[in-house]
Amino acid sequence: MRIRTLTIVGVGLIGGSIGLAAKRQRLAERIVGVGRRPEPLQFAQEHGILDAFTLHLAEGVRDADLVVFCSPVQFIVDQALAAAPHCPEGCLLTDAGSTKAAIVESLEEHLPSGVSFVGSHPLAGSEKQGPEHALANLFDDRLTVVTQTPRTDRAALDKTTAFWQALGSRVRIMDPREHDRALATTSHLPHLVAASLASMLPTGLHALTASGFRDATRIAAGDPALWTGIFASNRSAVLDSLQYLEDQLAKFRLALQTNDQQRLSDLLDQAKRVRDALGS
Amino acid sequence: MRIRTLTIVGVGLIGGSIGLAAKRQRLAERIVGVGRRPEPLQFAQEHGILDAFTLHLAEGVRDADLVVFCSPVQFIVDQALAAAPHCPEGCLLTDAGSTKAAIVESLEEHLPSGVSFVGSHPLAGSEKQGPEHALANLFDDRLTVVTQTPRTDRAALDKTTAFWQALGSRVRIMDPREHDRALATTSHLPHLVAASLASMLPTGLHALTASGFRDATRIAAGDPALWTGIFASNRSAVLDSLQYLEDQLAKFRLALQTNDQQRLSDLLDQAKRVRDALGS
Repeated sequence: MRIRTLTIVGVGLIGGSIGLAAKRQRLAERIVGVGRRPEPLQFAQEHGILDAFTLHLAEGVRDADLVVFCSPVQFIVDQALAAAPHCPEGCLLTDAGSTKAAIVESLEEHLPSGVSFVGSHPLAGSEKQGPEHALANLFDDRLTVVTQTPRTDRAALDKTTAFWQALGSRVRIMDPREHDRALATTSHLPHLVAASLASMLPTGLHALTASGFRDATRIAAGDPALWTGIFASNRSAVLDSLQYLEDQLAKFRLALQTNDQQRLSDLLDQAKRVRDALGS
Repeated sequence: MRIRTLTIVGVGLIGGSIGLAAKRQRLAERIVGVGRRPEPLQFAQEHGILDAFTLHLAEGVRDADLVVFCSPVQFIVDQALAAAPHCPEGCLLTDAGSTKAAIVESLEEHLPSGVSFVGSHPLAGSEKQGPEHALANLFDDRLTVVTQTPRTDRAALDKTTAFWQALGSRVRIMDPREHDRALATTSHLPHLVAASLASMLPTGLHALTASGFRDATRIAAGDPALWTGIFASNRSAVLDSLQYLEDQLAKFRLALQTNDQQRLSDLLDQAKRVRDALGS
């Protein structure tokens, strides 16, 4: 795979890491960054993530073969629709958003002909923000979900898959709604729970936390604006997962109320088997 | 502080780390391990954690100046009561249990004169088990809670404090019930929640987890027997904390149901502020 101009819209942790990984692999002749504020873009250019940057979306995509939208999910549809008329014929658009159904359905329906969109979600990142935390190896051996629907163009799907593989990632093709249901359980609900646990902690108890509390709540340091968008675009699946969690909590509650230690032990055993199977 | 014979009952991750830290500081002339199975004790002796070991509690404490019970919390009271008649006059007993009220109240009431008990809880450890994971620096810059009640002997309290400080730990003196209420929030509830999240994960979704899920559920790999004992000995405080968590979850649920993005953002902001203040 060889790209003449790769445009990254939203150069934060993920967008910056795409730039670094693409540089490492010499995947693109030129990498252009687009953003709202010059400071992170300036930083990214000075640190070899970008060759050029602009605050103007139309200008940034003018020569692009491939545009990756790494903005918070609530901005991706509008940005892609705004960019499309300025993209060259045959340009491929993809994204790195944590929810997929709303984005993919909207763009597959409304994008003008001549450009294609395929949804992507690299399962990589951290609670940190900004291109200063970008890593060239962020995607190595991680999974990226690439979405396919009956409307998805096959050549665009293949090119998107090749792009993420070139950045070091494994790729799984999934239906966008199936992705969102899965991620509600594996990512969005854990974030909601971590935030709830963190919120419960009064200042006076900070000193009485150990690594367990810190691990369990680490993701609660993530960007609230980013996560508000994720939750808002996957409300129904997150609510279903939350109900399922509450059913699990109710099992613990009953075992505690009745002092049923065998039941407590069984519940903890089951959880340990899953967590052990997952690996560190 | 100088100990002739230090006896460690239960030589796992915590007991083994006490041995290594005591060796590092040359805190004891002789370290004796007591356990139910010879294999971990043999391992500990071969790896410089112990000078000697026995499967017989009475024999293990016969010459002890200080005995530390590092067994699961449900065994500590019975072991201390069984050991006490065999301890030399003036022997100090302490423990490393994660709950304190039941242990401290029982032992301060029932121990024979001539020996003292002071409750301890080092806030250190991990989901791993066994002396092969012991670390000489496990307690460095960590906090150990040492308990005080109206019945606690002052000299024994001071000696217990000096012991943990010599192992590298900071010490905070707390009432045992206050400790248990605090740890319900900072440790026991997070464990229960991590176990619930882990239990929810079907095998088919393992590949769709990233570092967030792994961090949030890491403690669920802890020993179920150990944690059953912790939950059983702190049921009331854990149930109170669980109720408080469910109130937090209900706030998220309502914000999701009504698509109140400002409220979602506020809830996530509040959680981020707490987690950021806690540090990595």
